[in-house]
Amino acid sequence: MFDLSAYIKNKNQQINLALEKILHNSRPSEPIVEAMKYSLMAGGKRIRPVLCIAATEAVGGKPQAVLPAACALEMVHTYSLIHDDLPAMDNDDLRRGKPTCHVAFDEATAILAGDALLTLAFEVLSSVQFTGKNQAASWLKVIHIISTAAGYQGMIRGQMLDMAAEGQHLTVDELKSMHTLKTGALIEASLLCGALLADARKRQMDILKTYARNIGLAFQVTDDILNVEGNPKIMGKAVGTDELREKSTYPAILGLETSRQFAKNLVDEALQVLKVFDKTADPLRALATYIIERKR
Amino acid sequence: MFDLSAYIKNKNQQINLALEKILHNSRPSEPIVEAMKYSLMAGGKRIRPVLCIAATEAVGGKPQAVLPAACALEMVHTYSLIHDDLPAMDNDDLRRGKPTCHVAFDEATAILAGDALLTLAFEVLSSVQFTGKNQAASWLKVIHIISTAAGYQGMIRGQMLDMAAEGQHLTVDELKSMHTLKTGALIEASLLCGALLADARKRQMDILKTYARNIGLAFQVTDDILNVEGNPKIMGKAVGTDELREKSTYPAILGLETSRQFAKNLVDEALQVLKVFDKTADPLRALATYIIERKR
Repeated sequence: MFDLSAYIKNKNQQINLALEKILHNSRPSEPIVEAMKYSLMAGGKRIRPVLCIAATEAVGGKPQAVLPAACALEMVHTYSLIHDDLPAMDNDDLRRGKPTCHVAFDEATAILAGDALLTLAFEVLSSVQFTGKNQAASWLKVIHIISTAAGYQGMIRGQMLDMAAEGQHLTVDELKSMHTLKTGALIEASLLCGALLADARKRQMDILKTYARNIGLAFQVTDDILNVEGNPKIMGKAVGTDELREKSTYPAILGLETSRQFAKNLVDEALQVLKVFDKTADPLRALATYIIERKR
Repeated sequence: MFDLSAYIKNKNQQINLALEKILHNSRPSEPIVEAMKYSLMAGGKRIRPVLCIAATEAVGGKPQAVLPAACALEMVHTYSLIHDDLPAMDNDDLRRGKPTCHVAFDEATAILAGDALLTLAFEVLSSVQFTGKNQAASWLKVIHIISTAAGYQGMIRGQMLDMAAEGQHLTVDELKSMHTLKTGALIEASLLCGALLADARKRQMDILKTYARNIGLAFQVTDDILNVEGNPKIMGKAVGTDELREKSTYPAILGLETSRQFAKNLVDEALQVLKVFDKTADPLRALATYIIERKR
């Protein structure tokens, strides 16, 4: 039986060490660096970097080789959280059990800390030392995948749609498109980058894309469910906020039970496509199940 | 006699065409795309892309080959303007004679449009089609130069220092360090990227770095002078705002006359180091002079 919790713990140590190393040499007393570290090291689940590493392992790659991509993905994710939490956007005070960046610091510092993490992601991706031929081209492709996923046709478009949807009643399909962009795009990018850096074949990439789309959506459905019935102490943030804001969510449209079944079906589909992989894909299998069973 | 105004006009046409092409295929009616275009095509001077092209020409390169870098530099610059103008930062209503992005749209859209332009810069830089060997490595270096210059140890640090300086009396040295980061870093990056993509030798790069540092500072001193004695109609923005905000500026510390002389000395120094270049560096020479003689 594959021990996912040991796997995640082990990978998180690697990722946190790498993230700390990146910010280690910077001037520690400067508020911008403090704010970046504050949000980056706030105890996130590191789902995207772990997926990136698990994808590279699934196609025979080494975790160490994709660490810069894993770190960059977490930086892009953290930047998006900092900006989404801003007063002009979702105006959230609490994140991962701690005051959000603009509450702990101030709004200007939070905007710039987000900007800085986004920019640092690309600095990290372009600083990679390599020797093999074609490796530069691979890292360029990684930068292309991440920037496209994070950009105005991906994650940012999703956030725009999310804000526009406030007070609206979305259909399940509209909700799906929104989440495919807002969270799905970067989750897909995480898997593709990990696979690409291990020289995955096209067919493997296609399978991982299908896996990513299914677990990305399942992740969001579960987030919505947790916002209804999660434990705020475990989650480190308030629950019931979606209902309060009259947000369109899966439980609001489909009901809790159907939403749970929907998420389960998505994960089943993700597990189904992984069948052609051998046990190197066990972490991906366990992660798919974890995504709907997690409590935070 | 080198005709700078024809040169700038010609390069601006190339740059604007390239920028329009990049955003052409996107969904035009979406507010995020509208906001990105609004700020990107608001009639900026395109100093950074022009310097990038002029630098590549100075070392024997072709403008066409550096256009993605030129466009990315303008996107990074425009993102920084959008975010600097936000209510939580400098709270400016007018930019280039038009309402700032958050006034024309709203604050959330402006934050995301800035984010999107920053992200798009890296999408553009990583989408370059190339055939030659080592070209991928060169574009990775360009991404590294631009992300480092724009990041928390460069432009963003400069903006943090600028905000911290409000109400303080800076020394000339403190002012210099702040501007070296806030505007100097990206100007230097513009020249280095242009030169690097034309395979400039190390000595040429060093000369262009010295040129960049001098004109970068001269550019800022001139900005400060224009804020005192510029024509708001020509500049498209209010003047006298620095004095109103009690900002530390070169005219405030050194007086107008000494500031003018300081800017002139910087440009003389920039022209001096260019002496080893032949007439291919004429655009760079003319640009140095333009930077202190411009009226906007």
